[in-house]
Amino acid sequence: MNNIYNPITTDILQQLKDIVGPVNVLTDEERIENYSHDETSKEEYAHMPEVVLTPTNAEQIASIMKIASKHTIPVTPRGAGSGLSGGAIPLFGGIVLSVEKMNKILEIDEANLTVTAEAGIVTNELNEHLKSRGLFFAGYPMSLETCFLGGNIAENAGGGKAVKYGVTGRYILGMEVVTPQGEIVNLGGKITKDVSGYDLKQLYIGSEGTLGLITKATIKLLGKPNVASDLLVPFATAQEAIAVVPLILKQGIVPTSIEFMDRSSTEMACTYLNETLPLDGVGAMLLIELDGTDEATIEREMILVGDLCTEHGAMEVYIAEDATARERIWSVRRNIAEAIKVYSPIQSLEDVVVPIGSIPLVLPFLSELSKKYGVRIPCYGHAGDGNLHATAIKDPEMSMEKWKEIEPALLSELYAFIVGELHGKISGEHGIGLKRKSFLKAVTPDGEYELFKSLKKAFDPQNIMNPGKILV
Amino acid sequence: MNNIYNPITTDILQQLKDIVGPVNVLTDEERIENYSHDETSKEEYAHMPEVVLTPTNAEQIASIMKIASKHTIPVTPRGAGSGLSGGAIPLFGGIVLSVEKMNKILEIDEANLTVTAEAGIVTNELNEHLKSRGLFFAGYPMSLETCFLGGNIAENAGGGKAVKYGVTGRYILGMEVVTPQGEIVNLGGKITKDVSGYDLKQLYIGSEGTLGLITKATIKLLGKPNVASDLLVPFATAQEAIAVVPLILKQGIVPTSIEFMDRSSTEMACTYLNETLPLDGVGAMLLIELDGTDEATIEREMILVGDLCTEHGAMEVYIAEDATARERIWSVRRNIAEAIKVYSPIQSLEDVVVPIGSIPLVLPFLSELSKKYGVRIPCYGHAGDGNLHATAIKDPEMSMEKWKEIEPALLSELYAFIVGELHGKISGEHGIGLKRKSFLKAVTPDGEYELFKSLKKAFDPQNIMNPGKILV
Repeated sequence: MNNIYNPITTDILQQLKDIVGPVNVLTDEERIENYSHDETSKEEYAHMPEVVLTPTNAEQIASIMKIASKHTIPVTPRGAGSGLSGGAIPLFGGIVLSVEKMNKILEIDEANLTVTAEAGIVTNELNEHLKSRGLFFAGYPMSLETCFLGGNIAENAGGGKAVKYGVTGRYILGMEVVTPQGEIVNLGGKITKDVSGYDLKQLYIGSEGTLGLITKATIKLLGKPNVASDLLVPFATAQEAIAVVPLILKQGIVPTSIEFMDRSSTEMACTYLNETLPLDGVGAMLLIELDGTDEATIEREMILVGDLCTEHGAMEVYIAEDATARERIWSVRRNIAEAIKVYSPIQSLEDVVVPIGSIPLVLPFLSELSKKYGVRIPCYGHAGDGNLHATAIKDPEMSMEKWKEIEPALLSELYAFIVGELHGKISGEHGIGLKRKSFLKAVTPDGEYELFKSLKKAFDPQNIMNPGKILV
Repeated sequence: MNNIYNPITTDILQQLKDIVGPVNVLTDEERIENYSHDETSKEEYAHMPEVVLTPTNAEQIASIMKIASKHTIPVTPRGAGSGLSGGAIPLFGGIVLSVEKMNKILEIDEANLTVTAEAGIVTNELNEHLKSRGLFFAGYPMSLETCFLGGNIAENAGGGKAVKYGVTGRYILGMEVVTPQGEIVNLGGKITKDVSGYDLKQLYIGSEGTLGLITKATIKLLGKPNVASDLLVPFATAQEAIAVVPLILKQGIVPTSIEFMDRSSTEMACTYLNETLPLDGVGAMLLIELDGTDEATIEREMILVGDLCTEHGAMEVYIAEDATARERIWSVRRNIAEAIKVYSPIQSLEDVVVPIGSIPLVLPFLSELSKKYGVRIPCYGHAGDGNLHATAIKDPEMSMEKWKEIEPALLSELYAFIVGELHGKISGEHGIGLKRKSFLKAVTPDGEYELFKSLKKAFDPQNIMNPGKILV
């Protein structure tokens, strides 16, 4: 790759210190190493920045961008670093701009049911603050205990409750963005509909920090449902479990979640958490959540869903109604990714998404791939969204050379099937980032890809804003 | 305005005839006059095209765009012509490209709960086809008896059910678009989440045909609720009625609709339809719809909402539960715009949108404007979305000179208040088009406006795709 960027000179570094204060400028190798990677498990994806800045407001970020623009220095926005596609990695060095110190709730507006917060707030903290008011933010990435609001928006994070509530973007009413040129722009507001010009807000949602840096957001809140139940439903085979998913959705019931966990994912998570779930003869499980305001309705829907599962091969239907039991199950589900990583740090966590009706076609193909390439591919994910986290893992005894040969071939074949045969997409929520950019080019028709490039060039003609992500 | 475009020569006309067939090429002045305006009531907004084309597929449209691009000829996409901002008016002549002959349903996919249809299908027809399957498209523009799907998407049409169901864009999973350069691009699909590259689909939604022409779309369907009730609630004053709106929404109940009609709007519609509603001493009415799958729930919510209205000054709460009674009320609501137009064809139908909590502040300001400028401003609209159709009308005895002086001043003052004081937007659903473009520039901060311009230039560098709309 041709590095067209300029280094950060002593003089520029001083200017940056003047903007954010010396305490918010990190250059010490040991400290900036943390900012050289995200949660994507591949050494090649790591890259050291020259400097990490932790500004405390949008004005500082605007000043930083003006300097970066003047001197053609790459700037990589960073949230919690919990991303899974290498989006926060400073591929060309330069500046990492972390929003970690911008973590305030600015306003809770109960008349309009909105909260306005800075980009660096942890998702779960936001909901902790809202709980006592009976309100909640319906975005629910699985990393909610660590991920930042800004990152959620930049990646349009999905997660475990999208079947009913949709993904993060649906709740973003307004945002403040700093452009690559250092302009502070406020988009949207507290309004629920708006056709006053192009919908730039929607464009920034999911643009992975390549068009600008999100500094704060106004979020639509919902009244917290006061009834929720989870069904944990084991099946003898993964195929039986997944085949029930479109059948549930056709009932007209909208569960909050329909999560899928195959046996090996579940086992690894249980081991990792020192948890036990009944796994005798189990090939896979569905975790189905229902929530609402009316206990009788939830009860009725639970029975309907449970019966449907039983009719289609469920071995058992376990019901978790109290918070502790529910959290136990969800904790297993949330910790699968981490558990697989502990088992085998060399792996490729995938994020394919297909039309709901085509989910049953994904698992047999994964089995074929698994056999063909001789690697295990545990699979779990948001089955109710057609979004599966197939994870190809390098077994400890496989050589790194072999793995490096296999991984791209396996992914190419997987993506070609998902996009070409099932009309799906290669990422439902983790994003393209660094990890999938060459694959995105391979599966995207030229006409669409050209529009991607035009868009990036229009917003960031110098290519200084998170360069090397999404596009090759 | 400087016309940078080339005329359609005999030779070019022949090429267009070769593409779509002579029967789909209209040049006869009498016939093309229909395509010189939309439903925006202002003579100055009309402009004759040189030719109207009615292609029958996307390939023909792509070929047309290639010719237009080669010769720098402006192309104005057109749906049903039911728009209210002059979006379909061929301001610079050239080609009007009407999708009226592309009106087929291509597929109803019950496994994925989607319908795929061409851009020229009438919204209501779509739902008629879906009815027997217990499904519906939740987009509900008030012009649903005439408006086309393509136009709904291009304008991101809102309408009467957005409180619960959101606006058109929420349901568009996939679309086929022809770019200004004549490329056919397919965006999205049947998937419900997707972060594989920039969200171009969302960008086209609401872009008013200025970035490309939508030729078909895949729509997410919902199961049709089998219970619905409407409450018609008269209040002595408009201010009392509107003040109840945020109170209802804070209950945690999500009505399908909360529509507002002031006395003069209601009277005009009743006269127009030869309908009678009880209007003795009534200053305004709310029309509140609840729908769902459970009769008891709807009943309970209806009582809650009714009681709340009564506690806050409602004179009466009328309940309409059967289809005929419900349609009578809704027909009044849907026909207000047409009725006001019949009363006074010279008028300005506005579409401002504010945060829900600020709705009560809009009416007193409209009263002030009404007094200051000496014009009536009947007001109605989607109060539950904060979206009000204030309509300034020229009384028959006012001179045209006076009106022409008053109208822009009144609108400027209204928009400045809505945007500057209430943090609202100048259009919630009708769009900017031709009518509001100078006002949009006036109220949009430079940073955001520059991004609008960059975006348009990136997609349509020749400015041939619906030129003269949104941007000045």
